[in-house]
Amino acid sequence: MNAPLDKSPAPDFDAAFLAGLEDLLRWRRDVRRFLSDAVPSDLLDELLTLAALAPSVGNSQPWRFVKVNAPERRAAIRENFEACNADALADYEGERAKLYATLKLNGFDQAPVQLAVFLDTGGELGHGAGTKTMPETLAYSVVGAIQTFWLAARSRGIGVGWVSILDADKVRESLDVSEDWQLIGYLCVGYPQEEHIDPELDRHGWQERVDVGRFIVER
Amino acid sequence: MNAPLDKSPAPDFDAAFLAGLEDLLRWRRDVRRFLSDAVPSDLLDELLTLAALAPSVGNSQPWRFVKVNAPERRAAIRENFEACNADALADYEGERAKLYATLKLNGFDQAPVQLAVFLDTGGELGHGAGTKTMPETLAYSVVGAIQTFWLAARSRGIGVGWVSILDADKVRESLDVSEDWQLIGYLCVGYPQEEHIDPELDRHGWQERVDVGRFIVER
Repeated sequence: MNAPLDKSPAPDFDAAFLAGLEDLLRWRRDVRRFLSDAVPSDLLDELLTLAALAPSVGNSQPWRFVKVNAPERRAAIRENFEACNADALADYEGERAKLYATLKLNGFDQAPVQLAVFLDTGGELGHGAGTKTMPETLAYSVVGAIQTFWLAARSRGIGVGWVSILDADKVRESLDVSEDWQLIGYLCVGYPQEEHIDPELDRHGWQERVDVGRFIVER
Repeated sequence: MNAPLDKSPAPDFDAAFLAGLEDLLRWRRDVRRFLSDAVPSDLLDELLTLAALAPSVGNSQPWRFVKVNAPERRAAIRENFEACNADALADYEGERAKLYATLKLNGFDQAPVQLAVFLDTGGELGHGAGTKTMPETLAYSVVGAIQTFWLAARSRGIGVGWVSILDADKVRESLDVSEDWQLIGYLCVGYPQEEHIDPELDRHGWQERVDVGRFIVER
């Protein structure tokens, strides 16, 4: 099953690479405005191969990727979002409600690729190592794969947007996957209409980014 | 609070960078064998700054980083691990138990840096956007920051090991942080003794890596 092991020496990363990596992290965005241009399917599979290089607890590899292609399934997900987003809007008042209503929170209208990413809670790999006291690390392993996918995509000029305003159980039902599968993230994927270095929600006045120094303590 | 916005154009990533990124993903490892060499504190802070470029739901930036320095606190965490690991070992039988007992599952003995990473469930940023139906995305945001930290560290030759065999509530108590803080991951950080392209648990016969194609379905 495994590819032959690469015997080449461990890489050293030079200054140009480190600068590029910082650019990649700074220019990754949650994209909600896509071009309709197709993403080549071999490129998408390459990105999923890179995503699966993420760490996983016990090497459990519990990620499951669903390429959501059928128009009727996409329509069901979009209706799911619309209902949840109307509920969410109802929680805000005054200016904050007005602002929320103006935010573009998904790319369902144009993203050529939609990916639902699940945790398989019935997965058989990993033999339970590392999950007895913190079983949530299985879900976290899937999140690591999503963040890896996101960075790999951006490195190739492809944008990703993570939609969390969804009823997760209904997504699973709409996609007709195992009841053992727990939705971790629903991703819109495609070439972005525009590039920004500042986060969407910062640019539109919802929440600015603050210095990480506020969030570091010593003990 | 925010730095002036970078007005430079969005970067294009060239073939050399893409090859380097693939190397980075392939050679990132969960490291448990460290050199005792110190990690410069400004380098650690630089890595945390990069970690905070991770996406977060509603731009909530709910990550909190605790640099665990005090020997007595480190000793408490290690005792916590030893107790949890003895419990975990008791769940295995026969050959699997023998194998489990040989695995090195933490780097507490030598890692010069220990970082506890929390979710602040009482965080005040983000105004709740995106968290009504899937509040677990707050924890997932912290995981994205950890994975980003991990890759940034590896790019500078620094290894990271994530220890999840811990009683999370006791870790919080040992570190005397707010009850609103939920442990997401406990990290050992330092220069690695050795470099490998194959995952530790694969190399030692616990769980091999499988092709991601097994985990992709279409709908």
